[in-house]
Amino acid sequence: MAAADADTRDCDLVASTLHASLEDPALESMNFLNEVGGRYPDAVSFASGRPTEEFFDVALIHEYIDDYCRYLQDRRGFSKEQVSQTLFQYGRTKGIVNELIARQLAADEGIEADPEAVVVTVGCQEAMFIVIRALRADERDVLLAVSPTYVGLTGAARLADMPVWPVRSGPTGVDFADLAAQARRARDAGFRPRACYVMPDFANPSGASLSIPLRHRLLELAAREHILLLEDNPYGTFHDGTQLPTLKSLDTSRQVVYLGSFAKTGFPGARVGYAVADQRVAGSDGAVALLADHLSKIKSMLTVNTSPVAQAIVGGKLLAHDCSLTRANQRETAVYCSNRRQLLAGLASRFPDTGGPDRVTWNSPSGGFFVVVTLPFPADDELLKFSARQHGVLWTPMCHFYDGVGGRHQARLACSQLTPELIETGLNRFAALVADPRSRAAAGG
Amino acid sequence: MAAADADTRDCDLVASTLHASLEDPALESMNFLNEVGGRYPDAVSFASGRPTEEFFDVALIHEYIDDYCRYLQDRRGFSKEQVSQTLFQYGRTKGIVNELIARQLAADEGIEADPEAVVVTVGCQEAMFIVIRALRADERDVLLAVSPTYVGLTGAARLADMPVWPVRSGPTGVDFADLAAQARRARDAGFRPRACYVMPDFANPSGASLSIPLRHRLLELAAREHILLLEDNPYGTFHDGTQLPTLKSLDTSRQVVYLGSFAKTGFPGARVGYAVADQRVAGSDGAVALLADHLSKIKSMLTVNTSPVAQAIVGGKLLAHDCSLTRANQRETAVYCSNRRQLLAGLASRFPDTGGPDRVTWNSPSGGFFVVVTLPFPADDELLKFSARQHGVLWTPMCHFYDGVGGRHQARLACSQLTPELIETGLNRFAALVADPRSRAAAGG
Repeated sequence: MAAADADTRDCDLVASTLHASLEDPALESMNFLNEVGGRYPDAVSFASGRPTEEFFDVALIHEYIDDYCRYLQDRRGFSKEQVSQTLFQYGRTKGIVNELIARQLAADEGIEADPEAVVVTVGCQEAMFIVIRALRADERDVLLAVSPTYVGLTGAARLADMPVWPVRSGPTGVDFADLAAQARRARDAGFRPRACYVMPDFANPSGASLSIPLRHRLLELAAREHILLLEDNPYGTFHDGTQLPTLKSLDTSRQVVYLGSFAKTGFPGARVGYAVADQRVAGSDGAVALLADHLSKIKSMLTVNTSPVAQAIVGGKLLAHDCSLTRANQRETAVYCSNRRQLLAGLASRFPDTGGPDRVTWNSPSGGFFVVVTLPFPADDELLKFSARQHGVLWTPMCHFYDGVGGRHQARLACSQLTPELIETGLNRFAALVADPRSRAAAGG
Repeated sequence: MAAADADTRDCDLVASTLHASLEDPALESMNFLNEVGGRYPDAVSFASGRPTEEFFDVALIHEYIDDYCRYLQDRRGFSKEQVSQTLFQYGRTKGIVNELIARQLAADEGIEADPEAVVVTVGCQEAMFIVIRALRADERDVLLAVSPTYVGLTGAARLADMPVWPVRSGPTGVDFADLAAQARRARDAGFRPRACYVMPDFANPSGASLSIPLRHRLLELAAREHILLLEDNPYGTFHDGTQLPTLKSLDTSRQVVYLGSFAKTGFPGARVGYAVADQRVAGSDGAVALLADHLSKIKSMLTVNTSPVAQAIVGGKLLAHDCSLTRANQRETAVYCSNRRQLLAGLASRFPDTGGPDRVTWNSPSGGFFVVVTLPFPADDELLKFSARQHGVLWTPMCHFYDGVGGRHQARLACSQLTPELIETGLNRFAALVADPRSRAAAGG
């Protein structure tokens, strides 16, 4: 290994002296998935959970900015100079569109949020990190997360050195016995289970949703166990007609920190998200502050404030649709629902139920971007590479969302970004992969 | 304390179980300074180091976006759809304007940066955090910082649980003996001094700059001690005619991580900054990666990517000025230099050198936003409150930049955002404060 030796001699740093998150499997997963996508650009990709690009138009950005500026002038009484200062200058750490976000939450989600309990963040990812950073005071603090778990949550926790303890989802979406058992196990071992992360609506990656009775039960259990619930809801808007109440809208005891994203309902490039954190925090001096105020302090050390231009764009989009993103996304929702129905029908026609051990099964979410398919053999990274190379189709091995254990035979299929033609082509290729006698051997498991 | 008890009983969390940074003096400083400013809106503020608002105009945001889109179409061959996707969709974690930033660094700073060594961040604050997060592998890692230190650096370090060890600046800007001694002391105690933070040009808060020979000496010392230099340069552009070479432009051995900010040269509301991190990192598998690639991974867990719309705005501004921010900021630089000269002349006329123990002294930077005044009595938080209340003038106690020790008699005056009239009024009030016999007693020290 002379070449590697020479390379290494010429190095300035050694990776083992950098933060451990950098060599963490959770992060390697994200990189692996990105790389595979990049290496097979001609493959049909069921791997990407990105929003549809059908309605993207730069003219909208200009319109949204102007709409927001007009709102500041006409409705808030700002002078032209004050409008410019608002967009150009440093701004309030907590954000400038908090009131519009509160109106949207009331209109679409039945959440009555105090604008002062809202912290606007650089995408939902920053909201996750600052909540986790706040709750991770020392090495005793652990985070529970319903498994399979969104990798961004796991990544944010790694950055804050906070362990994530998986909670089984079971057939209903949350295994309550396991949740209680994990909390007890943590306490018995001297740890503090601070919160449980959950995506109750059309979860990424499982596509699963929690029933209303289970939402109530989850709130009760969290209150009993004194753990917060971190509710993440990027996909709730994109449903087939029935929207279930968010945990936050049912939360009567400030048990829920709501993590909001505009990546799918606005657009990803704005990088605007938020947290609703109305929990009351007792200070050592007897003063009481909202958890949102503490999150805001952490944000000030991380990104100072969220770009007011980006907030103006999101604010303009909200104003253009009377603060309802459900209304703003009617065309997008129609695309996602149509795609998902086509995907489900396409699976049914290609994989008829044989009843045998070789059958292919899947769940049938009524909203969101994701469907999970269970194969009769391991759906792992090796099979994904074979699938990309030999059959020209990409998907996501579910094992990446189990932090190493679980989901071995499962693949996540996303169809949010595909055309009807590509869905058919992709399904044909996926069926060919499943039928290919080499697939079983290709899988590393 | 019945009311406080009742309040606290109604609380959901206790601050002592949240991350320690939230009750840290560094953060309390920032909050105190913000609060004082808000409480006395009619005071003349020498406290704010914000850029001038004279040239802010929302029309520019539209122009910059269009300029950048035209560049993508005409010079990079993007279709209209690809342009929209670039601004709307998730983008590359490392950024999309890296090449334009590299051109700007070559044009203005004589830095030859590989665009792949650039990570675009949410303001310079995020760049600081991700560098510190990468370097803080465990409790042995410490950061050195030339003192007085920008509070944002201290805050970012607190968030990553990384101790900051101050290095004396002495009369020349860096006390080299102290720097070597601190590094030795850290190693002797089992710590790893990973890097030293320094602002070589018109530093915030000291206004001081390092001479060229001392820049070379700092690079040599850092190489000998195997510590990186984190060079922060938000003000270098705003000089009276003589720009000194950045450490990074003199760096022949990849000793410097350059922290870039567009907050003053672009505008704060874009929230775009960057790090240049060309260090080679040896992986445990023998692979070699740039430190920038590791920083990019950390960023993916923190904010996913920097808003491409915000990057487009900065990119458009760069394109509009042939990638020279020195050229783009000619009017701003003229304002800052004129204001600073007026401030220095105003101090000289109001505080003639008596030679006695009661004299007022100050430094005379040839660029940047800040001048430091030394008073014959403590310039602390209590005096600041008295100054705001009784004399209607705000400034910043330097002790906030010393992490608790040092700068007791010093005040930082910033004049970047004031008009000539307000500078005169503010100086009259400041002189009245110094002459007020009650001031000495008002100071808590």
